[in-house]
Amino acid sequence: MAIEKEVVRFGPYAGFIANGVRVGNVIHLSGQVGMDAQGQVVGVDDTAAQVRQAYANIAETLEKFGATMANIVDETFFVTDVAGIMADAKAVFGARIEAYGGEPEVTQTMVEVAALVMPELRVEIKCVAYV
Amino acid sequence: MAIEKEVVRFGPYAGFIANGVRVGNVIHLSGQVGMDAQGQVVGVDDTAAQVRQAYANIAETLEKFGATMANIVDETFFVTDVAGIMADAKAVFGARIEAYGGEPEVTQTMVEVAALVMPELRVEIKCVAYV
Amino acid sequence: MAIEKEVVRFGPYAGFIANGVRVGNVIHLSGQVGMDAQGQVVGVDDTAAQVRQAYANIAETLEKFGATMANIVDETFFVTDVAGIMADAKAVFGARIEAYGGEPEVTQTMVEVAALVMPELRVEIKCVAYV
Repeated sequence: MAIEKEVVRFGPYAGFIANGVRVGNVIHLSGQVGMDAQGQVVGVDDTAAQVRQAYANIAETLEKFGATMANIVDETFFVTDVAGIMADAKAVFGARIEAYGGEPEVTQTMVEVAALVMPELRVEIKCVAYV
Repeated sequence: MAIEKEVVRFGPYAGFIANGVRVGNVIHLSGQVGMDAQGQVVGVDDTAAQVRQAYANIAETLEKFGATMANIVDETFFVTDVAGIMADAKAVFGARIEAYGGEPEVTQTMVEVAALVMPELRVEIKCVAYV
Repeated sequence: MAIEKEVVRFGPYAGFIANGVRVGNVIHLSGQVGMDAQGQVVGVDDTAAQVRQAYANIAETLEKFGATMANIVDETFFVTDVAGIMADAKAVFGARIEAYGGEPEVTQTMVEVAALVMPELRVEIKCVAYV
């Protein structure tokens, strides 16, 4: 019962983790963080900057599947300081609206976790998209 | 590669977040919490009451897609006090069985998070359903 | 709008939770932990051992659907000590590569949670597979 996967890998951790895998019309994406192509965390004290970079990584992944941000259906935000995000909601969600080019038609779940994979990270965004 | 989304929005945060999005036969739902239609948290000290309200919100979302609780396949419980839930399992899971009208045929994952989006919240339930 | 579910239940908590549910070509799995068929946590101080047992449970679930580890597309790791896992990455991810029989083609998200359902647990792995 083998399945056909389309796998996208790029960036500093391409050897360890796939950025996205498509099976049929669904694309699962690995959680994306505010890390650039050189492996540097952007905006160590700036959640909105990390959100912007995470979405840039998501958009780049989707592009390699021939898809765009409009293909995203579900997102989970794992954050390290939800109260801080709520207090700075205009900047953080402004970065999100900017990334989508408008208020997106997606479901969203946001929870505060104890930690992300690196201490400098403030947000990790896990998306499911469809084509 | 545009996709057709059916989007359901209602309740106090309809301007910010979709309650559910359907693409093809899958419905993703945003994490639902123990908040009523007026934006009030119910059962501030009562996890079972929050579970009951969260499922009421889930059922209402599914109904707008022409679906019911029986369409749910997967649920993730993000909770703020897993030991407290285990100690009060009869009430909490009783509320769940009541919401489903019997022991449900769904997969479940439960983890304790550091916080939810509002400090009064004790549980957030994220579901995936199919039609 | 009823759907047809194939449900797999086994192990010490079969009465409370489905291990996996298939609808169409997608299989959702409940988060799996380092607990054996007798309900004993393996490797209380050994994350790699818990990862090995969790994947054994996942493989057993998939087998009952006629599927294998190669059918997994997405995994979420909920862990209690991400820094410890990173410091012991060779053992932990070695156990993962062993379970898959090579570097897997799956997406992965890893976050540190405040707690899992039992204090002895160090990792819970939630997978989505396709057939």
